[in-house]
Amino acid sequence: MPGRGDTTTKDTVTALTTNAERKKPGRPPGTSDTRERILTNARALFARNGIDKTSIRAVAAAAGVDPALVHHYFGTKQKLFAAAIAAPIDPMEVLRPLRNTPVEELGTVLPSILLRLWDSELGSGFIAMLRSILGGDEVGLIRSFLQEVIAVEVGSRVDNPPGSGRIRTQFVASQLVGVVMARYILELEPFKSLPVEQIAETIAPNLQRYLTGDLPGLT
Amino acid sequence: MPGRGDTTTKDTVTALTTNAERKKPGRPPGTSDTRERILTNARALFARNGIDKTSIRAVAAAAGVDPALVHHYFGTKQKLFAAAIAAPIDPMEVLRPLRNTPVEELGTVLPSILLRLWDSELGSGFIAMLRSILGGDEVGLIRSFLQEVIAVEVGSRVDNPPGSGRIRTQFVASQLVGVVMARYILELEPFKSLPVEQIAETIAPNLQRYLTGDLPGLT
Repeated sequence: MPGRGDTTTKDTVTALTTNAERKKPGRPPGTSDTRERILTNARALFARNGIDKTSIRAVAAAAGVDPALVHHYFGTKQKLFAAAIAAPIDPMEVLRPLRNTPVEELGTVLPSILLRLWDSELGSGFIAMLRSILGGDEVGLIRSFLQEVIAVEVGSRVDNPPGSGRIRTQFVASQLVGVVMARYILELEPFKSLPVEQIAETIAPNLQRYLTGDLPGLT
Repeated sequence: MPGRGDTTTKDTVTALTTNAERKKPGRPPGTSDTRERILTNARALFARNGIDKTSIRAVAAAAGVDPALVHHYFGTKQKLFAAAIAAPIDPMEVLRPLRNTPVEELGTVLPSILLRLWDSELGSGFIAMLRSILGGDEVGLIRSFLQEVIAVEVGSRVDNPPGSGRIRTQFVASQLVGVVMARYILELEPFKSLPVEQIAETIAPNLQRYLTGDLPGLT
């Protein structure tokens, strides 16, 4: 529901749309086979070895192309990963604005941004990919993203007591992944049809508790 | 982690193990093809039409066998459904003890029972089936269970204000399904290795809020 939310969220979604649209003209015609081969190999390597341990060079070697071509098509490794999971945008484009969000407000802002994105047209390709990943052998893609990217981006900011940040963010992930499942994959009614705002506001205090609350076992 | 929990949970898990073991001798030898054919057709029908609208008679017709044979192999429709989703036990065996749990304690008791069950050896077949369902065309199986069984069993008890019970239980489902994903399918670390008690106690207040708390949009 663009237009109803706060400006930050709207701007993020708008910026993302623009980014995604801008990408297309950069793709040379007649090379979709090579592009697809790079993506397939990237997916396999990211799934097996994670993001940190997968290099553009390794993806290029697996696809039998020059690393420069991978750079040319996809830019950075982050962007290659985003393309591999059919994310509508570079995940960092979503995560970056969160850096300026006070930790006390993350529980509210996080689901609000993500739900808008998943609900958007851009999100549908991602959901389809997620579903195929879940049924296949490449769940490592999602695991790697949650463990390596989210744990660093968000986990480091809620690492109180020290060492707890990773666990805190994984509880957040468990709720957010569950929302994806309930709304987009299981399509529970009325959950599927609830306004984004209602879901975001309902889960917000619970996410906030995971992020900054006093949790059992964290000492 | 059996042995560490309260007696109710332990008893439930023990009872379930026994039930599952008792079942096997009841299966006549040399009929596994028929049995499998019934299960395949049951899965397809449950997925397409839901539990309520699928009869034993319809499953028998689809499988080309007498309804009496379906009853003989699987007993009730609930038990046939449990077998179709490779649930280690009839879901009602888990849900029934919850009827005597005060609503104020459901948030704690629910994850405690479920996590123990999912973590048990009996649970692994269910997780495998769940994963294959999620990647395939039969997500209707899970949807139907959450909408038709859980909404009735639990939703009717937390229907305050009237009409809100279904939404409340679907938020609970979103968190629980997310725990399944994070722990058993995505296998996030350390989430995967946390003691059951820690996960149950961490999500308990959040589930309780979904069940009986003051939520946005419910009037």
